[in-house]
Amino acid sequence: MSEKVHATVGHHYIVEASGCDPDIIGSVERVQQILVKAAEIAGAQVWAISFSRFPPNGVSGVVVISESHISTHTWPEYRYGALDIYTCGKGVDPEKAVIYAVDAFGAATSHVTEITRGIDEGDTIFFHSFVTWEEDLKKKVKKDKKKDKA
Amino acid sequence: MSEKVHATVGHHYIVEASGCDPDIIGSVERVQQILVKAAEIAGAQVWAISFSRFPPNGVSGVVVISESHISTHTWPEYRYGALDIYTCGKGVDPEKAVIYAVDAFGAATSHVTEITRGIDEGDTIFFHSFVTWEEDLKKKVKKDKKKDKA
Repeated sequence: MSEKVHATVGHHYIVEASGCDPDIIGSVERVQQILVKAAEIAGAQVWAISFSRFPPNGVSGVVVISESHISTHTWPEYRYGALDIYTCGKGVDPEKAVIYAVDAFGAATSHVTEITRGIDEGDTIFFHSFVTWEEDLKKKVKKDKKKDKA
Repeated sequence: MSEKVHATVGHHYIVEASGCDPDIIGSVERVQQILVKAAEIAGAQVWAISFSRFPPNGVSGVVVISESHISTHTWPEYRYGALDIYTCGKGVDPEKAVIYAVDAFGAATSHVTEITRGIDEGDTIFFHSFVTWEEDLKKKVKKDKKKDKA
């Protein structure tokens, strides 16, 4: 039973990346390359991609992976990118994808919440829990880590 | 400035839907129809869709909308569906899409977190905040609403 329940568990990183390079996050081609590479770094298999201009200057994109999805929506005029990386199953490491993507965006700082999804207590009533932190990529430190069971 | 800052704000609903109808959430065609309809109900413009079988019996799908994205990953064997509805901008109502989609999935209960993304205090350092609740769709009530600033 424990193995079956584990199959529903996923790790979903919600990221607000600030201080990004506007030339990078304003380019549909570069953002697509970064997210596909992030999927590969996580060890995920890419099934489909969809990237387009997010008016006025941003990029909106989704990479559907075998283990869930990676998506972004960017606002170069504010040097801001919203990023989601959600993976299920074993053999994938979404945190590596997060670190790669925010670094490739040129982000100075990130506000990150990691949501553990699809948890149950054996009763098939599913819930999620989360932990939040700020990450200063220049210092490579995590601070103000805050855990909460939602 | 306030108008510009507002442009980055998005509403992202993270939903664990339990007790879903396995025939519905196990059908690629039906799940696709539900999510496209949910996008329409939210008032969002559909840009791209990608749906496929999520082994062994589930469905994995993303609808890219002009205002961000809607996605799902389902496990019919546990009557469980993980759902994300993320919209930016005015003129869209993501909560309507959430209510429609979980009802169409036949969910008995849902654990929901609404994340407000892309918030800043005028310094272009972006963060998110969230509020979590349980929703019993049969009773149409929200309970245990819990607010937290992440």
